Amino acid sequence: MSEQTLTFPDHVANKLEPHLPRLGPDRVEMPAATSLLPFVTLTFATSLDSGLSLAPGTRTTLSGSPSKAMTHYLRSRHDAICIGVGTAVADDPGLNCRLDGAASQPRPIVIDPALRWNFSTESTVMRLARAGRGLAPFIITANCEPHASQKALLEGLGGKYLVLPPATLAKQRFQWDDILQVIAAQGLRSIMVEGGGEVINSLLEPQNAGHVGSVIVTIAPTWLGQGSVCVCPARRMGPDGQPVAAARLTEPHWIPLGEDVVLCGKLAK
Amino acid sequence: MSEQTLTFPDHVANKLEPHLPRLGPDRVEMPAATSLLPFVTLTFATSLDSGLSLAPGTRTTLSGSPSKAMTHYLRSRHDAICIGVGTAVADDPGLNCRLDGAASQPRPIVIDPALRWNFSTESTVMRLARAGRGLAPFIITANCEPHASQKALLEGLGGKYLVLPPATLAKQRFQWDDILQVIAAQGLRSIMVEGGGEVINSLLEPQNAGHVGSVIVTIAPTWLGQGSVCVCPARRMGPDGQPVAAARLTEPHWIPLGEDVVLCGKLAK
Ligand SMILES: NC(=O)c1ccc[n+]([C@@H]2O[C@H](COP(=O)([O-])OP(=O)(O)OC[C@H]3O[C@@H](n4cnc5c(N)ncnc54)[C@H](OP(=O)(O)O)[C@@H]3O)[C@@H](O)[C@H]2O)c1
Ligand SMILES: NC(=O)c1ccc[n+]([C@@H]2O[C@H](COP(=O)([O-])OP(=O)(O)OC[C@H]3O[C@@H](n4cnc5c(N)ncnc54)[C@H](OP(=O)(O)O)[C@@H]3O)[C@@H](O)[C@H]2O)c1
Repeated sequence: MSEQTLTFPDHVANKLEPHLPRLGPDRVEMPAATSLLPFVTLTFATSLDSGLSLAPGTRTTLSGSPSKAMTHYLRSRHDAICIGVGTAVADDPGLNCRLDGAASQPRPIVIDPALRWNFSTESTVMRLARAGRGLAPFIITANCEPHASQKALLEGLGGKYLVLPPATLAKQRFQWDDILQVIAAQGLRSIMVEGGGEVINSLLEPQNAGHVGSVIVTIAPTWLGQGSVCVCPARRMGPDGQPVAAARLTEPHWIPLGEDVVLCGKLAK
Repeated sequence: MSEQTLTFPDHVANKLEPHLPRLGPDRVEMPAATSLLPFVTLTFATSLDSGLSLAPGTRTTLSGSPSKAMTHYLRSRHDAICIGVGTAVADDPGLNCRLDGAASQPRPIVIDPALRWNFSTESTVMRLARAGRGLAPFIITANCEPHASQKALLEGLGGKYLVLPPATLAKQRFQWDDILQVIAAQGLRSIMVEGGGEVINSLLEPQNAGHVGSVIVTIAPTWLGQGSVCVCPARRMGPDGQPVAAARLTEPHWIPLGEDVVLCGKLAK
């Protein structure tokens, strides 16, 4: 894990501004599905063939350093960062903000219904929390019996388990409405969903699009090839039984950034 | 099929210029693998999830009208356009140039080893050739016994079969070196390869990258979803047996165009 702080140029930050949750005193009034739910920014980096990583569990550097600095800038602009347990297990991510002069750290949130994430004192996110360079995670789960030593570690660092009743699970999956409500109840008003494949694909589905305030995708000029973990939402059928596009962005803005491009837009409802 | 002519703005054409075969008297000296082979521009339009079409045989409008005009501009800058028989069968494409004031038409080339393309007088490319608004195709094949009426139709319009000896087929596939040599022998010095999925994936493989002079990809802000015909090259392994990126563009340039982005670059060798 690199310890280096990052800077992100104002002229690019200004271009992102219309796609981010509002700053300042009016920031509670955010254009989410209902004003009680947090503003959701869906953001991730892919290859030209929509790959997130070369294989499950293979950490893959896709985008260049300006795009990486952008990720940390975006983290500085949200109250929380959310990932699925697949990413927590595969990447041991830090989930903190290394932007030079960041005023506060985002809260990491891991969706882990069955408590599969076997974290320890040496997990990156815990090390960063201990060092005061990040916050300990909130873990959204349906399992109310965490391992005692993990519970002590997590809570000792200021993290917690947010237990949703098993009844909220449909086919082993929480509804996004329930996830966002439990996040809102923690006073978190904006959340950046970073991955991985399954989490992103589910937010791109038509029934969840209403929860997503903004989409920011970085694309690197590379093809990962067959077998990679991909962003590819479920097939969608039109009224005539023929396939139609699964999702579309309205008001797209393309911002070249180093060797990559950043695409900002809103999900068509 | 629309009959409308198209215009393409000079300021965007100027940005594409470094990525195109040279114009003017020195245009035979092109940076191809060997100066005897045509300059190959690989160009196609995808969704964010790398889809070319919603399903095999489903014609899919991906990109907006400025990108479509760009395709016709690019056609005006090449001697030939090449597609696989899968695209000929699925799309019944016109393969002509509708750019306003285009000086000449590109030669359509269809790679059809087994003569699967069952064209007739009503196929779009034949109708356009008959109307003097396009050229009849050259069909690259290993089958030296075409249907007599199709042969008469094709040759009557100025098209022909280019028969490669079956010995050049490895696993039912021609080598690109052989394909490009037979094209060069027709005096065609630049070729735009437009698709479909299989043809593009094969040109992105490391052993063929040396034949590709330039890559121009248009990306639309949409996800086609699972089941689409995709650009996704074969998995590539590094020396340690772990997967590495299958292909990468060097000197990438991103040009926002309408709602789409155009990415130009060279395949890393
Ligand atoms: N390039 C990038 O920007 C980027 C960013 C993040 C991650 N990644 C990559 O993505 C890969 C991981 O992706 P992934 O698809 O395997 O995993 P993932 O999306 O991170 O996590 C999926 C898991 O999270 C849980 N989950 C997600 N949504 C849920 C819901 N609504 N309700 C209940 N549980 C839910 C489920 O756990 P259970 O299986 O226990 O039910 C599910 O299997 C890694 O290789 C990582 O490197 C890349
Ligand atoms: N969005 C775009 O820019 C775009 C552009 C073009 C096409 N498309 C879409 O792409 C789809 C078609 O793609 P596809 O993958 O099915 O077909 P394809 O790539 O057009 O054609 C594949 C076929 O061409 C022949 N072929 C290709 N390379 C060959 C070689 N080196 N040697 C010998 N034969 C070779 C083979 O024919 P045999 O099977 O007979 O051996 C092969 O099956 C269509 O849905 C079309 O709409 C989209």
